[in-house]
Amino acid sequence: MRDLGVDRDRLWDSLMEMARFGATPKGGCRRLALTDEDKAGRDCFVGWCEEAGLTVTVDRMGNIFARRPGRDDGLPPVVAGSHLDTQPHGGKFDGVYGVLAGLEVMRTLNDHDIRTQAPVEVAVWTNEEGARFAPAMIASGVFAGVFDLDFALGRADAQGRTMGDELARIGYAGEAPCGGRALGAHFEAHIEQGPVLENEAKTIGVVTGVQGVRWYDVTVTGQDAHAGPTPMETRRDALVGAARMIGAINRIGHDHLPGACATVGVVEVSPNSRNTIPGEVTFSVDLRHPEAEVLAAIDAAMRAACAEIAADSDLGIEVEEIWYSPPVAFDRDCIAAVRDAAARLGYGHRDMVSGAGHDSCYVSKVAPTGMIFVPCAGGLSHNEEESADADDLAAGCTVLLHAMLARAGIV
Amino acid sequence: MRDLGVDRDRLWDSLMEMARFGATPKGGCRRLALTDEDKAGRDCFVGWCEEAGLTVTVDRMGNIFARRPGRDDGLPPVVAGSHLDTQPHGGKFDGVYGVLAGLEVMRTLNDHDIRTQAPVEVAVWTNEEGARFAPAMIASGVFAGVFDLDFALGRADAQGRTMGDELARIGYAGEAPCGGRALGAHFEAHIEQGPVLENEAKTIGVVTGVQGVRWYDVTVTGQDAHAGPTPMETRRDALVGAARMIGAINRIGHDHLPGACATVGVVEVSPNSRNTIPGEVTFSVDLRHPEAEVLAAIDAAMRAACAEIAADSDLGIEVEEIWYSPPVAFDRDCIAAVRDAAARLGYGHRDMVSGAGHDSCYVSKVAPTGMIFVPCAGGLSHNEEESADADDLAAGCTVLLHAMLARAGIV
Repeated sequence: MRDLGVDRDRLWDSLMEMARFGATPKGGCRRLALTDEDKAGRDCFVGWCEEAGLTVTVDRMGNIFARRPGRDDGLPPVVAGSHLDTQPHGGKFDGVYGVLAGLEVMRTLNDHDIRTQAPVEVAVWTNEEGARFAPAMIASGVFAGVFDLDFALGRADAQGRTMGDELARIGYAGEAPCGGRALGAHFEAHIEQGPVLENEAKTIGVVTGVQGVRWYDVTVTGQDAHAGPTPMETRRDALVGAARMIGAINRIGHDHLPGACATVGVVEVSPNSRNTIPGEVTFSVDLRHPEAEVLAAIDAAMRAACAEIAADSDLGIEVEEIWYSPPVAFDRDCIAAVRDAAARLGYGHRDMVSGAGHDSCYVSKVAPTGMIFVPCAGGLSHNEEESADADDLAAGCTVLLHAMLARAGIV
Repeated sequence: MRDLGVDRDRLWDSLMEMARFGATPKGGCRRLALTDEDKAGRDCFVGWCEEAGLTVTVDRMGNIFARRPGRDDGLPPVVAGSHLDTQPHGGKFDGVYGVLAGLEVMRTLNDHDIRTQAPVEVAVWTNEEGARFAPAMIASGVFAGVFDLDFALGRADAQGRTMGDELARIGYAGEAPCGGRALGAHFEAHIEQGPVLENEAKTIGVVTGVQGVRWYDVTVTGQDAHAGPTPMETRRDALVGAARMIGAINRIGHDHLPGACATVGVVEVSPNSRNTIPGEVTFSVDLRHPEAEVLAAIDAAMRAACAEIAADSDLGIEVEEIWYSPPVAFDRDCIAAVRDAAARLGYGHRDMVSGAGHDSCYVSKVAPTGMIFVPCAGGLSHNEEESADADDLAAGCTVLLHAMLARAGIV
């Protein structure tokens, strides 16, 4: 059983097959949640599950569970879950890999006629990306009791179409309750979405948890004025102030290494006219750290720096925190199951903290959870050029197989 | 004659009357060139001119000249000119003041039965703002031989309607040639559009010329990456680099005081997503100085700073100069006529350089030219809240009257 491996090429072929649904000319995928492309991808997946003899259930959030019974089928299932939806300019691997690695585990168990003690399942979580319906990870959130079902079904896309209506339209408004049942464990295999494994030539990331994230909207207010006749000495240039703040936020991130990330991703300048001194600038701030206390220190440093620069430049400043996702620590035993499998299989591996959110964050609130990272080229994701190596994907899938077997037990 | 003054209230009332055409709810004006609102404003102005006994001529660019004959009517006319069109969210004074101050000069000459040696005219230049048809100041540019008539008539707005068609539609496609005749002098009264006069409690700005302007588009290229899983140490964040450049450009402006202006007004971040490290940032640069040599030094310093920051941060950089308007020096005798009038009338005054472009820039290429600035509240312009004081406006108009009389001669 220690030598048990998955079928590298079958996994790869399934990934490539799935990538045809919503394929983009640049080699990526556009398979937004609950669109026709998502329906086609789901239908394909369900077909594969049925071919593999799995029993498919859909819950009220459209989450799909494909089950392979255990000898003691009353035990809580050990689940491999992730998502099939993508970003608008997404790639072939983010999310999809975790789902199809789960399916490959099932196929491998079938190939070898392995019977598990507890049942095993593959889960597809609806709308992980949040690209069509906000917030992200909404359906795993409902499963975990973070969001109300009615709230979630009522979330609308930019055209005003609700998740409830779109689930019904594509035939994935299931009847099973969303949540309210125990899982023995939840494992999620995923591309790293960062460059660390690639840079260190490691194959497996043993994910111990997820960074805490704090999101802010910052508004800097000065005074619009004509760029020609307004002397430099009398200006209240909101952009010059915002630029200093962006620099300071970057330095604060560096000051709290290792582990800290500080990013300004969005900037809006008003009036954004070539010959007008900007009177108002808004920008986003994204602060991350695996420890809540350090994240709080970064928050304080960021607020102090912005206030000081604003006062120094006679600018108004408003820092509004719009979201806080506390750090997540995964289950010690699930982490150990992943680490042990990677070590036993001889893969180069390291413990790491996920910088991105995943369905596993919410699921970890109601089930013992672990994640497995594999490298992706250049750390790129949310990008049509997202790419991963077939051997690495197979390695991660093999670790998933062994971690699941460790939890489910072999008869 | 030294005590001759204009009618403060008549000037003010005419300004308020004109402001009704295209009036906005916030108290500003939207009277884009060659629209129905512009036609109504022009018709009103022409009516006033005819009531004042002036002879109205319209040239092929729709420039309006309202003439009061001189004793020697063959002499080149002394002209007061500016524009009636506004920005989309413009005010009541920018441009309009120079035109109606010219009309008030004519009315005052009538009131006092003053006969000038040379003829005097009020000019309305078409499409100074450039808000509807690019480039700005196009019709004074044609008059000065900077642009071809056919090029100008063919310029289209965002809906594809050309200046030629729109001039015909509103009845201002005149038959007089545009340009090709001598002007004895051209004076333009204008609100300052900056805060200097107000800050120094001066009434009259004696404008000696116009700053040179260089415009650039700068593109900074890094690498898009996910804000969570990408360690600070490995990022190529185009926005952090751009922020440093914006700070450096501001410092370079300060390093070249007095007289220098350096402004970044437009910033576009790509992909402009909250949790993505920006891979590309473009921004505009607007550099101004009254002396071409200093402006060249500022240009060199700006390019060196951007290149150094880019190299230091492993970012790509492209600096493209898209426009250069060399400094303009007005006519010594016209400047002196304005300065002498202000001094004789006892108005607090100072020499200054215009930071903004005006029709006088082009006209100065073919005629002796001077400008008169009056304060505007808070230095605001291109803004519906643009505001000026009736006494200041009357003072500037009186200076205009005396400067014109000094050039035209009194019989």
